[in-house]
Amino acid sequence: MTYDLWYWPSIQGRGEFVRLPLEAAGITYRDRAREDGAQALIADMQAREHRGPFAPPYLVSDGITVAHVANILLFLGERKGLAPSGDADRLWLHQVQLTIADFVAEVHQVHHPVGTGQYYEDQKTEAARFAAEFRNDRMPKFLSYLETAAQANTGGWLVGDRWSYGDTSLFQLIEGLRYMFPKRMQAIEGDYPALLAIHGRVRELPGIRDYLASDRRIPFKQDGIFRQYPELDAQ
Amino acid sequence: MTYDLWYWPSIQGRGEFVRLPLEAAGITYRDRAREDGAQALIADMQAREHRGPFAPPYLVSDGITVAHVANILLFLGERKGLAPSGDADRLWLHQVQLTIADFVAEVHQVHHPVGTGQYYEDQKTEAARFAAEFRNDRMPKFLSYLETAAQANTGGWLVGDRWSYGDTSLFQLIEGLRYMFPKRMQAIEGDYPALLAIHGRVRELPGIRDYLASDRRIPFKQDGIFRQYPELDAQ
Repeated sequence: MTYDLWYWPSIQGRGEFVRLPLEAAGITYRDRAREDGAQALIADMQAREHRGPFAPPYLVSDGITVAHVANILLFLGERKGLAPSGDADRLWLHQVQLTIADFVAEVHQVHHPVGTGQYYEDQKTEAARFAAEFRNDRMPKFLSYLETAAQANTGGWLVGDRWSYGDTSLFQLIEGLRYMFPKRMQAIEGDYPALLAIHGRVRELPGIRDYLASDRRIPFKQDGIFRQYPELDAQ
Repeated sequence: MTYDLWYWPSIQGRGEFVRLPLEAAGITYRDRAREDGAQALIADMQAREHRGPFAPPYLVSDGITVAHVANILLFLGERKGLAPSGDADRLWLHQVQLTIADFVAEVHQVHHPVGTGQYYEDQKTEAARFAAEFRNDRMPKFLSYLETAAQANTGGWLVGDRWSYGDTSLFQLIEGLRYMFPKRMQAIEGDYPALLAIHGRVRELPGIRDYLASDRRIPFKQDGIFRQYPELDAQ
């Protein structure tokens, strides 16, 4: 079975939440737009008249096209054992992933509060206002929820005694928040020891260690989701 | 098997996307906070230390607690046959539901662009700015995508030849947009005939007809997700 991932080739973005479990599990995949360019991605999307994606990332495998990060991870979880198979655990993990997706959507809203199609530079005042609430209220609310979720399991991971796609997503979330809000994270991340422990364990997975050291890992940058605007950060 | 739905008792909100397929399928369920009040909902959430929901709605059934609209619908789809069971159709329908969830999140952003915890009255200028882009760009983009999805199936529904949770969600989406943006919807909804056809078919399902005529259907109001602020609407 082949796995073709389609996502913007120059950023981590939402695609990174798919790349990470593929890399951790050692699943062979092609990152198509990194091979063929962004124009190939646009052309591929346009060619999918029916049942196409609303937006990248999407994964094509065995005649099935799956879009939406959480849906792709659900699919990989079932097909490749990257998630527990029992209903209670499977749905719980998906729920955590959907909560992470909501958190990431608010991260995007921090720098684009009043216009998803407009530049950050044209909404800096509004972004500063949203960012203050985000740092003070939303970050602790989401992180506390995820910390409780992590503490609910004694196996060292989010669910059970081996890593799942939820753990690689938590890793990426912590990485992104540290990049975007270095001051704020330094002030509060100690409140979330179970999340930091999972972050550390994911970083040491052989597949992730190799990936992070490779040029397949694109650096964080200002046109991704996590953006380092110092004026939006504070303790 | 019993189904306990927990959601804010005074609004349609996100809970309505769960109530509708339960009603359409004639599944017996208890709308717990409508029976016992909002305080009971808050107490129930607080009592769920582990694996609790980040926010309502959540559904409790047979010892499993499922939160997040799309996740609840995935669960009901599998358990109660409210979705096709083949992988390609099942994942496609979930993908459409997740896209609707993103659309609804942007609907909320229309009236709360710079502070989810602040009043609309304190962000009216920013809301007007976001609303303009939403009406002109985002609404047609999402609706066109969903129209293409609906047209891809010849069975009269989103997938296959019987209704699924995706169809009840499209119904609620059209209802909500007509309430919130009456001028804009009047101007553009004719561009989406397949969506309107599904909306009409869902409205005539016996379970939905009964529900809409009952006092279980809460009217749209200004503290839900779809809010009728005339200053945010325009052709």
